[in-house]
Amino acid sequence: MFKDILRLSGNLKYEFNDINILKTALTHSSYVNEHNNKNGISNERLEFLGDAVLDLIVGEYFFYNLKNTSEGKLSKLRSSVVNEETLFEIGVKFSIGDYMRFGKGELKFGGKKRKSIIADCLEAIIGAVFIDGGYEATKKVVLNIFKEKLIEAKEFKLNGDYKSRLQEILQKTNGVTLNYNLYNETGPDNDKVFYSEVRVNGEILGRGSGSTKKLSEQMAAKEALVKLGEEDV
Amino acid sequence: MFKDILRLSGNLKYEFNDINILKTALTHSSYVNEHNNKNGISNERLEFLGDAVLDLIVGEYFFYNLKNTSEGKLSKLRSSVVNEETLFEIGVKFSIGDYMRFGKGELKFGGKKRKSIIADCLEAIIGAVFIDGGYEATKKVVLNIFKEKLIEAKEFKLNGDYKSRLQEILQKTNGVTLNYNLYNETGPDNDKVFYSEVRVNGEILGRGSGSTKKLSEQMAAKEALVKLGEEDV
Repeated sequence: MFKDILRLSGNLKYEFNDINILKTALTHSSYVNEHNNKNGISNERLEFLGDAVLDLIVGEYFFYNLKNTSEGKLSKLRSSVVNEETLFEIGVKFSIGDYMRFGKGELKFGGKKRKSIIADCLEAIIGAVFIDGGYEATKKVVLNIFKEKLIEAKEFKLNGDYKSRLQEILQKTNGVTLNYNLYNETGPDNDKVFYSEVRVNGEILGRGSGSTKKLSEQMAAKEALVKLGEEDV
Repeated sequence: MFKDILRLSGNLKYEFNDINILKTALTHSSYVNEHNNKNGISNERLEFLGDAVLDLIVGEYFFYNLKNTSEGKLSKLRSSVVNEETLFEIGVKFSIGDYMRFGKGELKFGGKKRKSIIADCLEAIIGAVFIDGGYEATKKVVLNIFKEKLIEAKEFKLNGDYKSRLQEILQKTNGVTLNYNLYNETGPDNDKVFYSEVRVNGEILGRGSGSTKKLSEQMAAKEALVKLGEEDV
């Protein structure tokens, strides 16, 4: 059954006018096939809608935040955020598999941990918010749950991939080891700052901070590149 | 220059808060490349956004209007409406090529009549409305300018393709000719009813009416199928 579905709704920071829409979003087709009752509607139609809503919201985010980026690059950036891998990752973060309804067979075969099922369900949940609360409400939810992924992609576009460049440069030298280490976190949960350092053969070559761990590593790599004379300050 | 751009805005039944956004939507990249000035932004980024807005609005329309249709069929139906051919057709109806800015080369090679350019520009215009007025305002515009296409696709899904079925049945008999004839139109421009008859070897076999010519032909074909005992009333 539905394990505390209101908790999920709370975690998403969205209160449904009609909680049944969220229930539909959490209903895998295997459940409907097994129960074969009129009231059982699976989440597939909501997924269809959620997919389009998500594309638009993420597209709009990059459109406004990267004013000088061409449409081709906007499209690639969007794909770097809206893909099965990222959707799955976010779905797991919200434990949506635990709230889903499955048929017995699918449950047995580990459906609640399957990548495509979780990714599709997250899209269905986004579709459910859209049906229940409209576009602006959905935008709030999506920008919140995708926040880190969006910032990472944007920064990556603006600043380039310093980690890969550092890796490439150091690979030319044999026997070099490269490590990143998160040495501090500050601030409240919804506004954290992460601090990382990059060590080359054990020696700290750069430090950086950012709103995600990945970003702080990028900034540490940037400082290392500056020290190596490969990047302007 | 911009030939009465306000007329286009009026035809779309949308008043822009910032008419410059519409101007950008009407600016082909060839114009910007030729003029190479800072203020010249082409419509490609708006097209990126418009494409996603259009997918969502059309998806939402079918989601609500075809409650028992699977996500796979919803997706196919959307593609039957959101494609270069249809976008071009609607773009031509609004003469958007005449309002566009091109570089001299593109203009010489007939850019203002090129299918992909007109289709892309229509998407850019939809993106412009979205930027200027938000999702709900864009929905109104899109549902209006795509109205006939959406109704046709929906009816086709609900009622099937009677014309093709009639054609198939009659093809089995040699020497049969099949003609459709629009014999009447009533009502004001924005709420027209079309009346068509289908003739088999000159004899009227069915009559039908609908909000588009195509729909009235479908209904005429349905009546013919009923007469032939191939379809229930």
